[in-house]
Amino acid sequence: MLENKFLEKLKDGDRRYTARAISVIETGDSNSASMMKIIYPYTGSAYRIGITGPPGAGKSTITNQLTKFYRSQNKRVGIIAVDPTSPFTGGALLGDRVRMADIGYDEGVFIRSMATRGSLGGLSKKAVDAADVLDAAGFDIILFETVGVGQSELDIAKAADTTIVVLVPESGDSVQAMKAGLMEIADFFVLNKSDRPGSDQAVVALNTILMMRPHDMHSWMPNIIRSIASENKGIEDIAKEIERHFQYLKDNDKFLKRREEKTKFRVKEIVEERLRAKLWNTENVLSMEASLQQVVLGSLSPYQLADELIISFKNHITQ
Amino acid sequence: MLENKFLEKLKDGDRRYTARAISVIETGDSNSASMMKIIYPYTGSAYRIGITGPPGAGKSTITNQLTKFYRSQNKRVGIIAVDPTSPFTGGALLGDRVRMADIGYDEGVFIRSMATRGSLGGLSKKAVDAADVLDAAGFDIILFETVGVGQSELDIAKAADTTIVVLVPESGDSVQAMKAGLMEIADFFVLNKSDRPGSDQAVVALNTILMMRPHDMHSWMPNIIRSIASENKGIEDIAKEIERHFQYLKDNDKFLKRREEKTKFRVKEIVEERLRAKLWNTENVLSMEASLQQVVLGSLSPYQLADELIISFKNHITQ
Repeated sequence: MLENKFLEKLKDGDRRYTARAISVIETGDSNSASMMKIIYPYTGSAYRIGITGPPGAGKSTITNQLTKFYRSQNKRVGIIAVDPTSPFTGGALLGDRVRMADIGYDEGVFIRSMATRGSLGGLSKKAVDAADVLDAAGFDIILFETVGVGQSELDIAKAADTTIVVLVPESGDSVQAMKAGLMEIADFFVLNKSDRPGSDQAVVALNTILMMRPHDMHSWMPNIIRSIASENKGIEDIAKEIERHFQYLKDNDKFLKRREEKTKFRVKEIVEERLRAKLWNTENVLSMEASLQQVVLGSLSPYQLADELIISFKNHITQ
Repeated sequence: MLENKFLEKLKDGDRRYTARAISVIETGDSNSASMMKIIYPYTGSAYRIGITGPPGAGKSTITNQLTKFYRSQNKRVGIIAVDPTSPFTGGALLGDRVRMADIGYDEGVFIRSMATRGSLGGLSKKAVDAADVLDAAGFDIILFETVGVGQSELDIAKAADTTIVVLVPESGDSVQAMKAGLMEIADFFVLNKSDRPGSDQAVVALNTILMMRPHDMHSWMPNIIRSIASENKGIEDIAKEIERHFQYLKDNDKFLKRREEKTKFRVKEIVEERLRAKLWNTENVLSMEASLQQVVLGSLSPYQLADELIISFKNHITQ
């Protein structure tokens, strides 16, 4: 009964129920898994877009402008923003305030910032679960916005149907420094702030790197779209490129294949997180801690202790 | 017999045996765990130093200069360098060449670069195992050099007795962008290239951030050491600060405590990696893949599939 009401409210797009459902996910509540099972059959219709890139590239501005663009087409947009920026800097907070003033009071937009601190590991699982909630709540477009630093953040950006990597002309050396990961997950690039000097060179450099990747004539070749998001320039081009990528996936029977790949990763994460919770129950942690001193003093190797813990885990899990 | 010879050669500091042992670790060979058990009793005397920071801060130069400093004190130095920089950029390769010319041909120095690509997750476990090999091979100082981007890389830097975070004056905004993680793992900071403009402001900014952290009069307060590593300036100050931190740990009964903490993390990683290997054996992966399409089409939820996989894992693990 309660479940039915919850599901109806959520499917109606009720904002309070949507927010509450995501909170259940965030706190890692034990109800989370059963809730996700109930929601799941009503997901799958939203198109999911990942937006990532180095700090300061303008990801939030692009997310906001894209949101306004989709709203003008009467599509409902859900945003999941993940930013591990230090609580010291306040950068994210300021961005949030600007964003709220910009698009936050539109009933067709739902914005959720997810904290990363202390939740590393389970983070991309939570973000994808939250996207399922928004999907079931009838949002047509879901934008994952994450900073392109760290594996968890990249995992979230990768969980999308289309993944966009945002760069700026000055990031010549940030491209240098960038983990290869960012290059490999981009379905296309946005060169934002492209009125700044060095823009043409940045495009040439990026294209050179892209040409070095193994590819054939049937491969999707990531394009580079120029934008000045703060002036709303290039946003329609970005939306067009998203559409072109979607068409490519569909026309080449890659759309469901890709979702299967993402699902594989997701199921792996769910399984591992559950086993980890079982594994590091209080009893096991205490028994490990009791042996740590022996390891540090050299009379027991970490590998022997690991053997012991695995045996005790086997006994525990089958009870 | 063979084991004895291997162990003797390793303890003698034989370079070929040392290199081979690390290769066994890197390939994830099944012999790796038993080798580590044999080696372990001969570890524990090396002092381990983590050096991390954003790309371009001068970590390699500091590592090289510190190595030369310790060599002048007749200490043997092992270096484990982990850099996930894209193979596209060539930055790491160039650095390696400079490094080899500088310190690579000294018999008292052993340098090993570890690849990160494709080995995320197990990476910090492998780096710490490699440090054990160097420890058993009689190296007095082990330097972990990693770029401060991504959880795995931070985990490696944290695996040390003393962790140093290298910054440059221009990283005002890189401090901004920096994940709080870097702030929290630093036992002290090195402000490298400190002859550049903005150096004093960077120190003030850093101190302000540090003062905001919870601390009392008994806490270790991270210092900021200035250096110009390329001119060999400030290197002795860095070595002195490492020594001061070591003394602090010893005088406050924190040295073994800290090693226990690191060991706890390490044992957890070993256990999880082993269970992961058992979990994702070919059979389980195939059975998962067979169900993926159902999940994508909505007739099975990822959480139900996870349930099924966990049940099959339980049956499997107890056989």
